[in-house]
Amino acid sequence: MTVAMELRRIIINEIDDQQIVILKEVEGERSFPIVVGLYEAGSIDRRIKGMPTIRPLTHDLIANLVEQLGAEIQDIVISDLRDHTYFAKLRIRKDGELIDIDCRPSDAIAIAVTIKVPIYVIEDLLRDVIEDED
Amino acid sequence: MTVAMELRRIIINEIDDQQIVILKEVEGERSFPIVVGLYEAGSIDRRIKGMPTIRPLTHDLIANLVEQLGAEIQDIVISDLRDHTYFAKLRIRKDGELIDIDCRPSDAIAIAVTIKVPIYVIEDLLRDVIEDED
Repeated sequence: MTVAMELRRIIINEIDDQQIVILKEVEGERSFPIVVGLYEAGSIDRRIKGMPTIRPLTHDLIANLVEQLGAEIQDIVISDLRDHTYFAKLRIRKDGELIDIDCRPSDAIAIAVTIKVPIYVIEDLLRDVIEDED
Repeated sequence: MTVAMELRRIIINEIDDQQIVILKEVEGERSFPIVVGLYEAGSIDRRIKGMPTIRPLTHDLIANLVEQLGAEIQDIVISDLRDHTYFAKLRIRKDGELIDIDCRPSDAIAIAVTIKVPIYVIEDLLRDVIEDED
């Protein structure tokens, strides 16, 4: 089962390369923090603020690529946690089929905010994070 | 007309965000420097050194995406210079057609070294750079 999330906050810390993106449940109050790199945090931040760029940045390139290849990114899912590392998937619709492509949550979130598609987290992962906080 | 290039050197400078990638003509001695960001330079450097990663990084994600969508990146071309900014294209083959996708030279070079496809520069751009150096 997946839970729809939205971006709540990006905490950018220029001292080290551990930036934090906080997702919040769309229909609830649970939140889900993810550590990302400075470049990825900057990329997500720029997109939210709608900052213009003269050339397509990497996540715009991905969005253009998928479109030009006749497919559509349906949503992104943060799908797994192994050895303290989160894994995500882009779910892409093409010719009626759904194709999962593995990626890092930071890329997945940057793409989701670029093209405005839903962000999901697997319910079990969300529950694990909440339990860890107790 | 395009000229086949290869990666000669990456100069990483941690003091500012102006890293330099130097391309060299495959069948000649002319070289072509391009300024890229630290993240992009790091990404190209990691690929050349074959450093393993546990999750697909952004340029691996692009390579996987194109493959899973039934297409193939044929080569990359540094195609234009406008207002001191270089522009590039990924040339993608799909169902016998060639599709050009705009991108930054840094992404194009990172993708080319990831999947080992040729790097081209438009002859006029190469000539302009050489003339500037005279």
